[in-house]
Amino acid sequence: MRCLILLVCLAVGCLAQRPSKCRSPPLLTGSLSVSSASEKLMVYAKYSYDAWGKRIHLNEFVHYNNKSYHFDLLLLFREGVMYKIDRANQTCIKRKLCREFHPLQVPDNATLLGQAILGASSGIGQGLLVNTWTGQVKMKQGTGKYMSTVTEFGCIPVSTLFHTEKTGWLVTSFFNNVIGLVDPQELLPPSFCTDARLEENGEDPVNFFSFF
Amino acid sequence: MRCLILLVCLAVGCLAQRPSKCRSPPLLTGSLSVSSASEKLMVYAKYSYDAWGKRIHLNEFVHYNNKSYHFDLLLLFREGVMYKIDRANQTCIKRKLCREFHPLQVPDNATLLGQAILGASSGIGQGLLVNTWTGQVKMKQGTGKYMSTVTEFGCIPVSTLFHTEKTGWLVTSFFNNVIGLVDPQELLPPSFCTDARLEENGEDPVNFFSFF
Repeated sequence: MRCLILLVCLAVGCLAQRPSKCRSPPLLTGSLSVSSASEKLMVYAKYSYDAWGKRIHLNEFVHYNNKSYHFDLLLLFREGVMYKIDRANQTCIKRKLCREFHPLQVPDNATLLGQAILGASSGIGQGLLVNTWTGQVKMKQGTGKYMSTVTEFGCIPVSTLFHTEKTGWLVTSFFNNVIGLVDPQELLPPSFCTDARLEENGEDPVNFFSFF
Repeated sequence: MRCLILLVCLAVGCLAQRPSKCRSPPLLTGSLSVSSASEKLMVYAKYSYDAWGKRIHLNEFVHYNNKSYHFDLLLLFREGVMYKIDRANQTCIKRKLCREFHPLQVPDNATLLGQAILGASSGIGQGLLVNTWTGQVKMKQGTGKYMSTVTEFGCIPVSTLFHTEKTGWLVTSFFNNVIGLVDPQELLPPSFCTDARLEENGEDPVNFFSFF
């Protein structure tokens, strides 16, 4: 009987050590880059992320088809509104935004691909323990495949590979992340945006992925 | 005068903190993956690396143009010999290898692109401090561009992007590295390779990059 209890405890202990699907901290500030396998798209952005308020701010430099752009975007998912901000000229464009907010987390239907050390596990500060999850998401047109890597400790996003028939592989890398909001002000529309009229441009409401 | 000395000390202190071009540990064991932007090539390999003996062992699974291959390769740069080993059938192919051994290091003419944290710096075990270096190397045909990321502590390779006109972008990611040789035996030719004859196939001597 004692052996049985010991075995059950050992089994539970082992199971408990399997990486679990996790949700990233609700407040994050950091940088990210997005690049396409086709080498057409390259994005570098600083981001502020607030899962409680369902708000994201992106200050991004986009290189697409040999042209460069700069966007200062505030996405307010709860209100279903996106602001495209020009701070130099103090102007604002306000558009509809799809209200569906996807928090940074490992989806429920994800499968663990594996656990790995980036760098080395031979010395302090030489390595980072990460878990990689894979799965599929249904989209309007077809299916999207993803491979998402997060840290074992803290569930901090490290990289995401995303594939659709239309876009091919997109690689998003997260870095210089800190837990918390370095500047909460960035998640509020600037005063000169107050009077911005909602643009009815007849297009589909913008969603998060269309920014890349 | 005291102020001047203090200022000089501070300046020297700051300069000393700039990331320096480093050489990776001479003995490493780990895993690596190589993928091409064209999505044609995907390699997963376990490697053993001995910079003192100028020896590399690669046990690699290659997916190229929708076909899969397995290679067990021992590269002895000092002897200018490469063994392609089939342990199941105890057979060996011996070929010439270019004797030029490139140790894992940041090249002398590299430029620092930047320092970053993979993951987050907000908690223990959540992040990894890395330096990214960029530069060009002259090759037989044209020039190759690289972007190489190593850990600040230990100079452990994390990833390398390499671009030539011929190959496009190749991304090599290193993971599960440990300092030292987990199995030194892997860097010795198996006994059944002793009698292998050197194949004179008329081709150029094989070099490290031709394995991917």
